[in-house]
Amino acid sequence: MIVEIVSTGTELLLGQIVNTNAPHMAKRLNEIGFDVLFQSTVGDNRTRMTQVLSTALARADIVITTGGLGPTQGDITKEVTAELLGRPMLLHAPSLERIKGFFASRRLTMTDNNIRQAMFPEGAIILDNARGTAPGVVIEADEKTVIHLPGPPHEMEHMLEHAVIPYLRDRFGIQGTIVSKVLRTFGLGESSLEERIKDYIKTQGNPTIALLARNAEIHVRLTAKASSDAEARELIAALESQLRERIGEYIFGEDEDTLEAVVGRHLTEKNLTLALAESCTGGLVTSRITDVPGSSAYLAGAVVCYSNDVKIAAVGVPAAIIATHGAVSGETAVMMAEGIRERFRTDLGIGITGIAGPGGAVPGKPVGLVFIAVAGPAGPSCFQYNFTGPRGFIRHRTALAALNHLRQYVVGAL
Amino acid sequence: MIVEIVSTGTELLLGQIVNTNAPHMAKRLNEIGFDVLFQSTVGDNRTRMTQVLSTALARADIVITTGGLGPTQGDITKEVTAELLGRPMLLHAPSLERIKGFFASRRLTMTDNNIRQAMFPEGAIILDNARGTAPGVVIEADEKTVIHLPGPPHEMEHMLEHAVIPYLRDRFGIQGTIVSKVLRTFGLGESSLEERIKDYIKTQGNPTIALLARNAEIHVRLTAKASSDAEARELIAALESQLRERIGEYIFGEDEDTLEAVVGRHLTEKNLTLALAESCTGGLVTSRITDVPGSSAYLAGAVVCYSNDVKIAAVGVPAAIIATHGAVSGETAVMMAEGIRERFRTDLGIGITGIAGPGGAVPGKPVGLVFIAVAGPAGPSCFQYNFTGPRGFIRHRTALAALNHLRQYVVGAL
Repeated sequence: MIVEIVSTGTELLLGQIVNTNAPHMAKRLNEIGFDVLFQSTVGDNRTRMTQVLSTALARADIVITTGGLGPTQGDITKEVTAELLGRPMLLHAPSLERIKGFFASRRLTMTDNNIRQAMFPEGAIILDNARGTAPGVVIEADEKTVIHLPGPPHEMEHMLEHAVIPYLRDRFGIQGTIVSKVLRTFGLGESSLEERIKDYIKTQGNPTIALLARNAEIHVRLTAKASSDAEARELIAALESQLRERIGEYIFGEDEDTLEAVVGRHLTEKNLTLALAESCTGGLVTSRITDVPGSSAYLAGAVVCYSNDVKIAAVGVPAAIIATHGAVSGETAVMMAEGIRERFRTDLGIGITGIAGPGGAVPGKPVGLVFIAVAGPAGPSCFQYNFTGPRGFIRHRTALAALNHLRQYVVGAL
Repeated sequence: MIVEIVSTGTELLLGQIVNTNAPHMAKRLNEIGFDVLFQSTVGDNRTRMTQVLSTALARADIVITTGGLGPTQGDITKEVTAELLGRPMLLHAPSLERIKGFFASRRLTMTDNNIRQAMFPEGAIILDNARGTAPGVVIEADEKTVIHLPGPPHEMEHMLEHAVIPYLRDRFGIQGTIVSKVLRTFGLGESSLEERIKDYIKTQGNPTIALLARNAEIHVRLTAKASSDAEARELIAALESQLRERIGEYIFGEDEDTLEAVVGRHLTEKNLTLALAESCTGGLVTSRITDVPGSSAYLAGAVVCYSNDVKIAAVGVPAAIIATHGAVSGETAVMMAEGIRERFRTDLGIGITGIAGPGGAVPGKPVGLVFIAVAGPAGPSCFQYNFTGPRGFIRHRTALAALNHLRQYVVGAL
């Protein structure tokens, strides 16, 4: 079955917002076995929307639109389809009640315009909107299927998952299932990772293997087709264990795991506390750690020590170490990690010092030189990096590397 | 002139990447007066790309594509257009030399495949690629114009700005110019801001006024058309000064300014130093401040004081204050700001304490309760907020509010 996604909305056409709905839908529909072969965007204009929908219906079996289901005069998607298919618009009483209830429960006044959201082409299947006022709609016309979904991503995504995908699976008798699992890796580049598992990539069948670079992480996505979820998961588990033998040390988590969430889980499990002394990352690592709800259980705090005075007075780095080795040195990083661990009385300490640029380079110490130290019961470890790139990239890479070294220390040494 | 943007690439169709090229192009083309009325996406498939380009040529005057200009067999955009317009593909010697030079200067080996990047439909105008190996191309065919641009955004954006827009202005005799200026505001909601300037919005002509909500900031975009840049800027300046009388206190910067960059400029100008004590934001504010190159000139450092022990020992908050008023209180926020200022010997101190959620609420202190204090030569100021929303949203809003209070303190009180 060929699918076309039609995104409607003048703000998309003008480039005022980026279209994230189309890629989300394309990804999910591909995963369950539908071919999304065309995507189109058109504004809230009756003539041009008719033209685009009619082109879409000629070349695709299923046309899914987003947007234009709201209460305003600019929301015309359902009307355009009704006219194109020669169907009258009818009031759907249960939808009207739902919309009234939505307004009443929020003590908002409902306007007459909102009644338009309860009007649908004759014969339509209504899809409830659990997250907003505009219901979705499925219209079956001969061999073709038109589906209208609301534009706000959180409304669309919920309806896609809970109404559209079940409908499509049922209607087109999709027997089997497709399950994906992502192994999230950090620390090895895409080509080096590929090199290590290239025989599996070359001979892949079911499950398939895809490598995706995402914000300095490399994701390995395994996708299996099978007649049941359990069978698909077994296929994935078998391949996963083989891959883990090759690249297991770089895999930090699965699916939606973040490095900071994984670190938090390990610290919680082992009942360890943490403090950080950050120089070049300026609080970025601590900010990511505290993104995780409940991080106060293991994070005592941190010192951002941009100046040498603060490194000495608030973190406890000996002035002589800075004088001898420089503020950007492995020795200083280790003393930062040890110092903050002692001052904040935690099990673990992190020390990060480096030159994020664009200024700050000195002879022998270029922009991108970074030292990351982890101190703890198993003694200190220190790692040197020579990153290249703009300031934001160096800070981001340093933050991820620090979180990953912390993870490895907790998993490996403790 | 009607424009259609055609994005090519299987990774777009599969939803593996989000299309940022189309909105960027749409925005810029709209700004210079072209109507982008259609956008389409198609994969690297000869039949379907032919179909999509032929539909585009039927309904638009100018068709601009991105992607498919690379050296691989999947890169077919130019060939599809050549076939559609009945033109042979010819080798363009200067482009081949350029590509050879690109490889030589990077000490990379050029493969035979790269020769394909120097082949163009007969009669094409070649657009040099300053940032990559794939040249762009303009093909004029009767009343229609087809433009092919490379897919990587930094290559496409450079070529659009330096080759395509000058070409289009010249070809279609665009006389005047369009200039936009963005006034970035923080602290007032979109509807309140609109209310304050609604008479200007209602009677807008040239310049036009658009309000855009962006990550909790509201941007006011003024766009003027005129026969010269200078004239357009004068029109904008006149309206801007009127708007500033109404909403000036909320305008923190212009165009690409960020709150942290603006704060940095003010601190530098007034030769002031800063330290922060962050609790619920966990280093987020300091991280944003240190995003700015050169921030080490005014930022001494910060303490992330998640635990009360750290608030007392490392920031100097009196234990009695926490015992009496609680860690989340205006009193504690002020002592954090005063304490860190004293400890780090800076002109200014910031103290932030609150409950980011989802846990941590106590009777009388709900999730979202936040206190932000600024301490400095003009005495301490403290602000209370009751944010609602998820953890990340509360932290983000708190960070922006803290930066804005710091800005106001430095501008207003010092």
